Amino acid sequence: MDRARTAAFVAVGSELLRAGRPETNSVRVAELLRPCGFRLVEKRCVEDDAAAIATALRELADRVALVVVSGGLGPTADDVTREGAAAALGRRLERRDELVAMLGERYRAMGRAMPGIAARMADVVAGAEVLRNPRGTAPGQLITAGDLVVVLLPGVPWELEEIFVRSLLPRWQGRGGTAVRTLRLAGAYESAVEQRVSHLYDRFGRESVTILAGRGLVDLVLAAEGDDAPGRLAEMDEAFAAAAGEELYGRDDDTLAGVLLAALRRRGLRLAVAESCTGGKIGDRITAVPGASDVFVGGVVAYADAVKRDRLGVPAALLAAHGAVSGEVAEAMARGALALGADCAIAATGIAGPGGGSVAKPVGTVHLAAATPAGVRLAAHRFPGHRELVREFAATFGLELLRRALGDGP
Amino acid sequence: MDRARTAAFVAVGSELLRAGRPETNSVRVAELLRPCGFRLVEKRCVEDDAAAIATALRELADRVALVVVSGGLGPTADDVTREGAAAALGRRLERRDELVAMLGERYRAMGRAMPGIAARMADVVAGAEVLRNPRGTAPGQLITAGDLVVVLLPGVPWELEEIFVRSLLPRWQGRGGTAVRTLRLAGAYESAVEQRVSHLYDRFGRESVTILAGRGLVDLVLAAEGDDAPGRLAEMDEAFAAAAGEELYGRDDDTLAGVLLAALRRRGLRLAVAESCTGGKIGDRITAVPGASDVFVGGVVAYADAVKRDRLGVPAALLAAHGAVSGEVAEAMARGALALGADCAIAATGIAGPGGGSVAKPVGTVHLAAATPAGVRLAAHRFPGHRELVREFAATFGLELLRRALGDGP
Repeated sequence: MDRARTAAFVAVGSELLRAGRPETNSVRVAELLRPCGFRLVEKRCVEDDAAAIATALRELADRVALVVVSGGLGPTADDVTREGAAAALGRRLERRDELVAMLGERYRAMGRAMPGIAARMADVVAGAEVLRNPRGTAPGQLITAGDLVVVLLPGVPWELEEIFVRSLLPRWQGRGGTAVRTLRLAGAYESAVEQRVSHLYDRFGRESVTILAGRGLVDLVLAAEGDDAPGRLAEMDEAFAAAAGEELYGRDDDTLAGVLLAALRRRGLRLAVAESCTGGKIGDRITAVPGASDVFVGGVVAYADAVKRDRLGVPAALLAAHGAVSGEVAEAMARGALALGADCAIAATGIAGPGGGSVAKPVGTVHLAAATPAGVRLAAHRFPGHRELVREFAATFGLELLRRALGDGP
Repeated sequence: MDRARTAAFVAVGSELLRAGRPETNSVRVAELLRPCGFRLVEKRCVEDDAAAIATALRELADRVALVVVSGGLGPTADDVTREGAAAALGRRLERRDELVAMLGERYRAMGRAMPGIAARMADVVAGAEVLRNPRGTAPGQLITAGDLVVVLLPGVPWELEEIFVRSLLPRWQGRGGTAVRTLRLAGAYESAVEQRVSHLYDRFGRESVTILAGRGLVDLVLAAEGDDAPGRLAEMDEAFAAAAGEELYGRDDDTLAGVLLAALRRRGLRLAVAESCTGGKIGDRITAVPGASDVFVGGVVAYADAVKRDRLGVPAALLAAHGAVSGEVAEAMARGALALGADCAIAATGIAGPGGGSVAKPVGTVHLAAATPAGVRLAAHRFPGHRELVREFAATFGLELLRRALGDGP
C-alpha cells in the first residue's frame, strides 16, 4: 500500500481500557478519513500516561503518514496527550497567548471564572497549527514533522467530529480519496447475501467490499480508489445492487424505518403497529426518525392475550384455536391496529425465549403481518439467537415486510 | 505498576478498521482478565497481515506480561494470526495430528467433508498448548516465552468467551485478582454523581473508581486489589452506596427494567405503559427482560393526540387546555394505561426534537407519570442532547420514577 495513504488512530483514556464500553471515536474517524484518501491500518487505546502516548506515537510514526489522537486534551492532571505528543516529536510545549485569551472569553460566556488549571489547554506542541473547537474548550492541534502528520483532537465525539469536518476535511478532500458507498439491505442473512454477491469479487476485487451484518440487516460497503474512483464506484453500485435484489432498501445514511416512513409519506398513508414479542421495539425504531409524527399514529403493545383481545379485537376463538403465536393472530392484530386511524400496520407475535418454546413452536418462532390498503401480507420466521436477537430480527423483518408490501424500490 | 499484572489485547481483522462498527471483544476480555489479576494497559486493532500482527506482538512483548490476540485463526487465506505469532516469537508452525483428527471429526458431525484448507487450523506455534474450542472449529493456543504469555483466541465472541472461561479463568484465578463491583444508578447525571462521591476519592484512591455514564444511567465501577481485596471492596461498596442514595437501583448485572419488574413481581402488581415521545422504547426495555410477561400486560403507543384520546381516555379538553406535553396529560395517560388491566403504569409525553419546540416548551421537555395503587407521581424534565438522547433519557427516568414510587431499595 502507498504509505502516504496510511493512517493510524490512538484513543487516549484509561477508562477505555477498564470497563464496560467499546471505543467508538475510531469508527467515526475511519469514516471521515476515507474521503480524505487515508486508510486506517491500525488503531489503539492507551492509558492516560504521557510515556504510553509517546511510545504509541513513536511506533506508529515509523509506519504511517498520519496519526490521529483523540482524548487527553482537557484541563485536568490526567490529560497528558499534549505532553506525550511533544515528547514523541522531540519538541517543547509553548503556551499561546491568543488561546489563553480565547479560553478566558469562553469561560466568561459560561458565566464562570476560568480556573487556573484551564490554562493548560492553551499549551501547544511547538510549531503546531491550532484547530479551533467551536463546540468545546480544548482546541485541536495539527503538527507536521517531515513526512508525518500528527493530529490531536478532543475525546468528546461531538467536538472531535466538528473539528474534523471544519478543519481537516476541507484540507484533505483534494487528495483524491477513496470513493465509498454503502448499500443497505434488510430482511437478509449475511451468508445468503455473500453467496449472491461473491461472483462479483473477481471483477471488482474482494478487498473492495466489506460485508457488515447483524440482526436482519446487511450492509455492503463498496470502496473504489484512484483517479477513476467515482466511475468505478458507480459500476460497483450497479452490479451489487442488482445482486442484492429486493432486499436493498437504501444507501449510505438511510435507515430502514426512515425509508419506510418516506414511502408511506409519498403515498399519503398513515401507519400503526401492534406488537407482542417486540414489546414496543418497532414503534421505537419508527419514532427514532425525526418527523415520524406526520405518518405514525401509534400502536398497541399487546403483550398479554387479554390486551390482544380487548384492544386489538383479536377474537378469543382465534387465540384459542391457533395460539397467540400464529399467522392468524398476527393478521388479526394488524387489522386491529388499523382501527387506531391508520391505512397500514405492522404486527409481530412470537416466542423470544428463553422460555415458552415447544416442539411445534420453538424459541425464535415469529409471525409477522403487514397490512396495506391492498391487503395483508404474512411471514413466518424462525430467527436464530437469544431473546434480544430474536426481538431485533422480528422488528427488522416486520418493517421490511411492510416496505416490500408497498412495492417500493430504494 | 507491577509488570506481571499487565496485559494487552490485539484484535486482528481488517474489517475492524474499515467500517461501521466498534471492536467489542476487548471489552469482554478486559472484564475476564480482572479476576485473573491482569490489568489491560493497551489494546489494538491491526489488519489481517502477518507482518502487522508480528510487529504488534514484538512491541507489546517489551512492556506487558500477557498478550491476548483474537481473530485470524480460521481456515481462509486471510487468517494469518498463527503465522504472525510464530514470526514474532521466532518459532515455526507445526501441524498436530490430533487436531487434524479432531477437525475431521467435527466436519463429519456437521455432515460435511473437511475442505483441504481447514487443516491450517491444526497448525500451532511450536511449543504451544492447545485450548479446546467447544463452540467452534478453530482451537485457541497458549504460548509461554520466558516472562511473556501469548494467547491466541478465535474472533467469534461466543467462542472466545467459552475458551477463556473454560481454559484460562481456572488457571489464573488463583493469582490474587482484582475484586470488582459495579454500583448502578438511574435517574442521574454524571456531574452530580461525581460531586457527591468525590470526597471518597481521598479515602479509596481515585484510580479505584471509574464512572461510566450516559442517558440517565451512571455506573460506578469499584475495584480493589491485593490480599484484602474483598474486604476493601465491601468497604467501598458501603461508602459509595451511601453517597449514591436513592439513585442506586442495583449492582453488577442488574438492569433497571429487571429490578423494576422484580419489585412489581414481589408485590403481585401488573404493569402497563402509555408512550408518546418514547414511541415504544419503555415497553421495549421492559420486554427485553426474560419472563416480563408475568408482570407486563402491554401498553398504548399514543403518538397522535387522537390515540391519546380514543385509546387512553385523555379528555380532549385537557389536551386543548394544557397541550399534549404537560403533566396533566402525562397523568391522564398513566391512568388510562391502568385500564389495560394493570395496577401500575408509566407514561411519557415530550418533545424529542429536532422540530416541535417552543420558548415555553423547548426541545427536550418531557413530562413523566408513574401510577401505583398509592397514587400518581409526576416529574417534569428538560433533557439535553439530540432526539435519540432525549428519548433514551425519558425511558430511563420513566422506569426510575416508578421504581422510586414503589419505595424499593436495590
